[in-house]
Amino acid sequence: MRVGDTHYRTLWPREERSPVLQIIDQRQLPHHFVVADLRDISDTARAIRDMYVRGAGLIGATAAYGMYQAASAGMDLQEAGNLLTATRPTAMNLQWAVARMQAAATEGKDLYTEAMAIADEDADWCRRIGEHGAPLLEAIAARRSGPVNILTHCNAGWLAFVDHGSATAPIYRAHDAGIDVHVWVDETRPRNQGAQLTMWELMEHGVPCTLITDNAGGHLMQHGQVDICLVGSDRTTRAGDVGNKIGTYLKALAAGDNDVPFYAAMPSSTIDWSISDGVAGIPIEQRDNDEVLRARGLLDDDIVEPLLAPSGAKAANYAFDVTPSRLVTGIITERGISDAGEDGFAALFPERFEN
Amino acid sequence: MRVGDTHYRTLWPREERSPVLQIIDQRQLPHHFVVADLRDISDTARAIRDMYVRGAGLIGATAAYGMYQAASAGMDLQEAGNLLTATRPTAMNLQWAVARMQAAATEGKDLYTEAMAIADEDADWCRRIGEHGAPLLEAIAARRSGPVNILTHCNAGWLAFVDHGSATAPIYRAHDAGIDVHVWVDETRPRNQGAQLTMWELMEHGVPCTLITDNAGGHLMQHGQVDICLVGSDRTTRAGDVGNKIGTYLKALAAGDNDVPFYAAMPSSTIDWSISDGVAGIPIEQRDNDEVLRARGLLDDDIVEPLLAPSGAKAANYAFDVTPSRLVTGIITERGISDAGEDGFAALFPERFEN
Repeated sequence: MRVGDTHYRTLWPREERSPVLQIIDQRQLPHHFVVADLRDISDTARAIRDMYVRGAGLIGATAAYGMYQAASAGMDLQEAGNLLTATRPTAMNLQWAVARMQAAATEGKDLYTEAMAIADEDADWCRRIGEHGAPLLEAIAARRSGPVNILTHCNAGWLAFVDHGSATAPIYRAHDAGIDVHVWVDETRPRNQGAQLTMWELMEHGVPCTLITDNAGGHLMQHGQVDICLVGSDRTTRAGDVGNKIGTYLKALAAGDNDVPFYAAMPSSTIDWSISDGVAGIPIEQRDNDEVLRARGLLDDDIVEPLLAPSGAKAANYAFDVTPSRLVTGIITERGISDAGEDGFAALFPERFEN
Repeated sequence: MRVGDTHYRTLWPREERSPVLQIIDQRQLPHHFVVADLRDISDTARAIRDMYVRGAGLIGATAAYGMYQAASAGMDLQEAGNLLTATRPTAMNLQWAVARMQAAATEGKDLYTEAMAIADEDADWCRRIGEHGAPLLEAIAARRSGPVNILTHCNAGWLAFVDHGSATAPIYRAHDAGIDVHVWVDETRPRNQGAQLTMWELMEHGVPCTLITDNAGGHLMQHGQVDICLVGSDRTTRAGDVGNKIGTYLKALAAGDNDVPFYAAMPSSTIDWSISDGVAGIPIEQRDNDEVLRARGLLDDDIVEPLLAPSGAKAANYAFDVTPSRLVTGIITERGISDAGEDGFAALFPERFEN
């Protein structure tokens, strides 16, 4: 997508077959645009854990390249996979990409080609999510005047994937087609991916957007100021329970209480076909409490992290929550939109429901 | 309540009948404990608007003293009341205290005595809220082992009143009686009154507490980690719709979805007997967008406000939302606990339902 006048993806090899992966260091956004080199699997694992890169598809594509780095260095791929999957326990695409690279190695495939294919597929699947999702926004635009008001949480934008994004793909596509869209962007504490990443990428692309606190969405929905909620997912069960950034569940409840359609968008690589009950089954990552006790921002050209709470305060930092499928209007995948539930998925992904 | 080993209220005259009101400058908390002098009604109006003081009861008691300051300076009390009520449009106690002081003046009462009575009553009403609410916590403690986990939002603590607080009064009382309580404290963006004020006062009093983001409460309730929600109110309708800090409605939805009791605590001075429908009728204050674009915290002994979002980002800042009475298990007042609704209030406050 656009950064100024240049088209970027979120990761690329320094050169053809290089073990060095180049990424946008998302910890510096929106204040500084910095490209970082990940020279080996240790760099790559640290970049995933410390969130230089984050987001469902991008974690997967980065991990796939990490497996190529490991293979290039002669490292055991079981060990490499364990190293990578431990970094972000909720992320389904991480497990998926590691397993696919291990299978490719077993089948004797070229791992550079496989890692590149994973990245290209991610971009293509997100592009198709945009094709399937944009008509939802066009339908709202067609039935009344004024902008289509979309609420999103966290960053399920192109920065969370290789390109296009999941929740943002329909937004970019509708915007580019001339539909009048406006996005309410939840800031998404504690790491503020909404304030820092979603706002940045929407502004770079010229999509009208307004930053709100995570507390505000319910009030907006009560007052008719949200037409549709569009979020991403980090892991979705075969029954349609949506694991996503902490706080998503609260917005789904408000959408349900106010008859606002609530859609989750994701490539099928985010779906965990092995579990049904998301609240019981999706592992919820707990991160450093300092993320809650502090906030990161720009002060006089420096990125600083002042302390918000009393010195010595205890905190807890659950990074994800689960929205039960009953609260999800539909799931937008690369194959189309399905109801949230086994029947919906079985229609789109019949190969997952055989035997 | 306790600050170190000293008992404080949130406001007091510099000396008997002095026009100078002394307050704790809450913008400096939890990092610095600073007492500020409000020398006249201009000081007092600014202190309310810019949130040196905030919270339902404290705004009322401060405004009452502001009316005394105005009268001492020979100012017209209609004009003084207009100046004060414009500062925080959602705050019911502000209107209530101004009207009461104007009525006292009309009746020829001594305004210093009346302002002191309002402060004393606020403290006493909060104490009684504690008496009525603590048995809810004791009942939870009696039926199982482990701490009683309470979730609260924003600051409805002693810092929001003259003493004791509303939502916190039952907590302090139960804690002081030896009940094992633990409080989940929503940080409460954008101004972080939970992180800065509620955490501080609970820690000063020795009540176990854990800071969480505003996004986390739904997840905690899904996993049985919240026994009861206790919040305050800035304006509640005669039908029991609870206007409170933005985000309260989202927690009430999660409580409802997980069968967690949800109580709002307030003195009757917070109840707006003139309106029923809160979503339609309670005015919602919009504050400076900079509160959303920035966060306030401590960096190297300085309080700083770094920018969270891209330079030039748009924001919106609704300060309150309304929780419909159907989501409120009960309302704890100085007269006891009532169902949220006209019938409940009519039983406790029959004089308000006569005509």
